[in-house]
Amino acid sequence: MPTLIPIADPDDVRLEPYRAVRERDLVGRQGLFIAEGEVVLRMLLAQTRHAPVSLLLAEKRLAKLEPLIAGLAPEAPVYLAPQAVMDAVVGFPIHRGILALARRAEPLDPAALLAAQPTPALVLALVGIANHDNMGGLFRNAAAFGAGAVLLDAGCCDPLYRKAIRVSVGAALTTPFARLAPGEDLVGLLRSQGFEPLALSPRAETALADLARPARAAVIVGPEGPGLPDDLLARCRRVGIPMASGVDSLNVAVAAALALHHLRFVARG
Amino acid sequence: MPTLIPIADPDDVRLEPYRAVRERDLVGRQGLFIAEGEVVLRMLLAQTRHAPVSLLLAEKRLAKLEPLIAGLAPEAPVYLAPQAVMDAVVGFPIHRGILALARRAEPLDPAALLAAQPTPALVLALVGIANHDNMGGLFRNAAAFGAGAVLLDAGCCDPLYRKAIRVSVGAALTTPFARLAPGEDLVGLLRSQGFEPLALSPRAETALADLARPARAAVIVGPEGPGLPDDLLARCRRVGIPMASGVDSLNVAVAAALALHHLRFVARG
Repeated sequence: MPTLIPIADPDDVRLEPYRAVRERDLVGRQGLFIAEGEVVLRMLLAQTRHAPVSLLLAEKRLAKLEPLIAGLAPEAPVYLAPQAVMDAVVGFPIHRGILALARRAEPLDPAALLAAQPTPALVLALVGIANHDNMGGLFRNAAAFGAGAVLLDAGCCDPLYRKAIRVSVGAALTTPFARLAPGEDLVGLLRSQGFEPLALSPRAETALADLARPARAAVIVGPEGPGLPDDLLARCRRVGIPMASGVDSLNVAVAAALALHHLRFVARG
Repeated sequence: MPTLIPIADPDDVRLEPYRAVRERDLVGRQGLFIAEGEVVLRMLLAQTRHAPVSLLLAEKRLAKLEPLIAGLAPEAPVYLAPQAVMDAVVGFPIHRGILALARRAEPLDPAALLAAQPTPALVLALVGIANHDNMGGLFRNAAAFGAGAVLLDAGCCDPLYRKAIRVSVGAALTTPFARLAPGEDLVGLLRSQGFEPLALSPRAETALADLARPARAAVIVGPEGPGLPDDLLARCRRVGIPMASGVDSLNVAVAAALALHHLRFVARG
């Protein structure tokens, strides 16, 4: 049974981690993160890597959420506040009335994460993805098309940022990811674990529809403007998505979705 | 040569259409709309349906933009303001320093727009898309994969909303669209113009990869939560995008991209 703690005072110190959520988002939370909304809460409580620390719910949400939170450990309290108190604490109107504080799992080792993938395997590797909307969309699409892991280079933003989790519809909590050290060689790492690096690029040698499925496939995408760096492209198979004349780019999450869908459900091995 | 008009006073009445841009976005502008950023400005000036009324540029942007605006008619003035004046007028920091006011073209007739499509043809039809990010993404993908037109039911939001235009990377300005009247029969309209209605739905009879290309194809998508209404689905070919187990939805713009890419570049007729 969860521990329910009604709170009426917006200055109650137990709500400190939920204070000024947006400003905190920018500076980080030392191993903790915030998740919001019912769908994401459901995903958080269904996985075991990241441990819930506490919940903050608008009182009016409790009845509907009781079955969902029934299995929450007693040491992770559920704070219940009137909507107005909750709004005052978090610093903006939080209509959904559902926030969770969780402790992020220990970082995974990139090589170990790749080694743990079964064969056939499909993973997604991200280079310089700094936009949280795109990060969330990439995780959502990785989950939709069965990528078993996501690799992030040192230039990527945090998938456990509140907005990225929300846009991922919780997939950022459930799809394992690992971050490379600055300067670490992504292509070398992938090859060392038997993955063929498939870089999406307008300067392609293979059209997506003609791409056969390697037994261990890694789709690599970069930021929309600059794209992937030349020295990385030179060491990968470059895969292109055809576009109508006059159009020269796709949203990076859309491009990744097309490649992952093709490799998972269309391409022959 | 464009007419350049420096303005130093944030209360100058000539900047009235640019005042409080965000608040105005919500109430509409009686036949006018605002576009922002260099890429979108380039698209606006390259098309002929929507006429530019004026531009408002941060002074520091002028030098770089001079070649782009050289062809602007003298009756569409270019207001030049210091960044701080521009920020004060529009009501938020407008880092890109580029805004345009334009007059929206006369609405197109849906049947006439469909009739004007050549064969083979590919169009996108949207039902109940109320989110401007999704609307922008849908137009971006329609343009990328060569859809010749977009149809909107009466429940869709406005593609010429500032944010939708920005997310579309200007495609909302260049891809022709038409809006159905409330209650108008989308499927009947499509069939009357020789289009096969292909509704994306989890309750599919055909997997996307197995879908042959009709000579005149219309991809129909609905909002992520409720999806397309049953009575519409019953009258269409229902096409499904396979997903990994445990995942039950895609972003609507991603789903449309997968279908349009398949029909335009992969499927056989």
